[in-house]
Amino acid sequence: MRQTELFTKTRREAPKDEISKNAILLTRAGFIHKEMAGVYSFLPLGLGVIKNIKKIIAEEMEKLGSQEIIMSTLQNKEIWEKTDRWSDEKVDVWFKSTFKNGSEVGFGWSHEEPIMEMMKSHISSYQDLPVKVHQFQNKLRNEVRAKSGIMRCREFIMKDMYYFALTEEDNLTFYNMVIEVYLNVFRRVGLGHVTFVTSASGGVFTDEFSHEFQTICESGEDNIYVHKDGKLALNEEIFNDKTLEKLKVEKSDFEMKKAAEVGNIFNFGTKKSEQLGLSASNSNGEKKPVFLSSYGIGVTRLMGTVVEVLSDEKGIVWPKEIAPFQVHLLVLSDKVRSFADEIYQTFISHRIEVLYDDRDLRAGEKFADADLIGIPTRVVVGDKALKSKKLEIKDRATGKTREMTIENLIKELKG
Amino acid sequence: MRQTELFTKTRREAPKDEISKNAILLTRAGFIHKEMAGVYSFLPLGLGVIKNIKKIIAEEMEKLGSQEIIMSTLQNKEIWEKTDRWSDEKVDVWFKSTFKNGSEVGFGWSHEEPIMEMMKSHISSYQDLPVKVHQFQNKLRNEVRAKSGIMRCREFIMKDMYYFALTEEDNLTFYNMVIEVYLNVFRRVGLGHVTFVTSASGGVFTDEFSHEFQTICESGEDNIYVHKDGKLALNEEIFNDKTLEKLKVEKSDFEMKKAAEVGNIFNFGTKKSEQLGLSASNSNGEKKPVFLSSYGIGVTRLMGTVVEVLSDEKGIVWPKEIAPFQVHLLVLSDKVRSFADEIYQTFISHRIEVLYDDRDLRAGEKFADADLIGIPTRVVVGDKALKSKKLEIKDRATGKTREMTIENLIKELKG
Repeated sequence: MRQTELFTKTRREAPKDEISKNAILLTRAGFIHKEMAGVYSFLPLGLGVIKNIKKIIAEEMEKLGSQEIIMSTLQNKEIWEKTDRWSDEKVDVWFKSTFKNGSEVGFGWSHEEPIMEMMKSHISSYQDLPVKVHQFQNKLRNEVRAKSGIMRCREFIMKDMYYFALTEEDNLTFYNMVIEVYLNVFRRVGLGHVTFVTSASGGVFTDEFSHEFQTICESGEDNIYVHKDGKLALNEEIFNDKTLEKLKVEKSDFEMKKAAEVGNIFNFGTKKSEQLGLSASNSNGEKKPVFLSSYGIGVTRLMGTVVEVLSDEKGIVWPKEIAPFQVHLLVLSDKVRSFADEIYQTFISHRIEVLYDDRDLRAGEKFADADLIGIPTRVVVGDKALKSKKLEIKDRATGKTREMTIENLIKELKG
Repeated sequence: MRQTELFTKTRREAPKDEISKNAILLTRAGFIHKEMAGVYSFLPLGLGVIKNIKKIIAEEMEKLGSQEIIMSTLQNKEIWEKTDRWSDEKVDVWFKSTFKNGSEVGFGWSHEEPIMEMMKSHISSYQDLPVKVHQFQNKLRNEVRAKSGIMRCREFIMKDMYYFALTEEDNLTFYNMVIEVYLNVFRRVGLGHVTFVTSASGGVFTDEFSHEFQTICESGEDNIYVHKDGKLALNEEIFNDKTLEKLKVEKSDFEMKKAAEVGNIFNFGTKKSEQLGLSASNSNGEKKPVFLSSYGIGVTRLMGTVVEVLSDEKGIVWPKEIAPFQVHLLVLSDKVRSFADEIYQTFISHRIEVLYDDRDLRAGEKFADADLIGIPTRVVVGDKALKSKKLEIKDRATGKTREMTIENLIKELKG
């Protein structure tokens, strides 16, 4: 895409009403637009990142054999009353409104209850199980505070997956499988090196338990304790003598780190099924409550966390798999414009996603914008390229520059 | 996909609480799940159709050079007050709630106001214009009545596009270009033969005006008057002597038809820009209010309209471009199961989207389900196929059957 056609503008100054790094950088670079505190719209570059994150997650969900659906934002009060999660005393993040007839309606902050209700129409026997479904949902939560940019929003995109099983064993097998798949998602978005699975509550041997995926991040809201071996991390809630003893580890080997929760998984056992009446007959014809586990990844939160963790003083640094474009092509003078146009067409014909800074600006401004926007590979076409036919390539993450022909660069990008 | 793996079930009986044809068929076939009156979730088959409709629209938007964004559901009261569209007296479809601090927040039923506000950060001079943006949005509307299935929902997916222009002429040129593009969308989803552009209010020579795209449909909520030449149609509101005189047509040449509005386009002139303060300097440095036009297509409503218009007494009839699968493969006995498995793999290796009814059911039930689900091409593998190697092919729309080898069928489907 030609940058002259991209309608968003970068800005030098940080927005006055933002304090979080992710909101400041994403706003300055033209990825997001603030509607209200904790409420953002996503502009073309921002939506590009979201689509790439969703694509990664969708591919990993497909490996698990999960089927995609999309549930409603509007929530039926009656269903939530069955599990005692309707009242504001029990759940303090509800947005609620009223229909024209005066009856109350909620806005989805989570979807366990309605999906259990839905499954009553599709699950009745062991032959229908297991069922795996997921959705990419716009969740609405009436948060008190919203000062962390897109890391804690009143409106945000979440991927939630649900697993319905006949037996506890099957449920747990899948639960453990998802842990590996989730770690792969976090690796692919570029956070693998700083993301840990932490046990969040209970133990593996109680009926209900959960795990979190925590990314070490200065601006995170949680504290986790990371073992010096780099493999084990514990949530603050369970970092106590009892846990340490059980795991046979020393307290002194742990270091506290700030972390952001990027995913969480819950085993509900049969609790929800019993509350909402979802059962399946086993092979003996006996009705049994169905086991449920649920699996969440905050898509927009993940995007914000990547910015918090990987950006530098010049701007954002997008990992390859989620960058809005693979290449940022900069033309530095009118003398080389037609040569740069050719390079641009060459990238397009090789299906390499390229943002082409064809604006009539000084080189310094273009370099600053490229650093701010954070596309992985910067390709500069300056005057000397006309003779040498070599392009100046800069890696956004490492800052390393090289000279290469377009042919070699394309080979490298494609490989 | 194997039908034994698809978690949704078909049902023989119509749901008790539905009266519209689209809701009855889509529920019976497992495309949708009703959450409340006018609120539906979309199951894998239903989401498949939505994705295909979105793909068609996205391709057509790309031809226009429009850039995709996604705005927020939560709406800022202050912005809507500027155009006097916040109060329930002025706009009667708002859902509203309150933040924890007691201030009001709305839920997006339309997005003209916030997008004007957003563009103040990106449009300041003629060099920034024109701007074309669109989004696929989950709109929320507090409708009094919601008995038309997915054709009039309290929550529905809409594609809305906005055009920002420096001059009236440019705005009108684009407006007319979109009419042709929209007609192409309706052709591609299979409704071209029954969809008309109708002038909805005003005339082309006033500052503000709009057009609708109306699909002839028994269950439609509007009346339109269609000329016997099949090319001109008029909305009820402007079907009067004045209009007829202006167009030089005879009243008696028109026939009244029920119709459903599947798209609408508005020219706001500079009204919204003046209310919200969006201006751009022209080449003389003078600040001028920006011209706005907006363009909507109801994605889920379009899906419902297709079902209303194209289904028959046996079930749904999906047009090829939006069908959730291209082929419905049915195996009729265990004797030919391994042969059918091979056929299934052959389709997959040729990237033909196939739903494989591998369930252990009687042929009659499979035929009935296939007719209900409405995939364009049905391929039956029965006992005699083992010898003849010919498959029985049935076209869902015409009912015509033929015998063909898998090779010839694939050639035809790919061509």
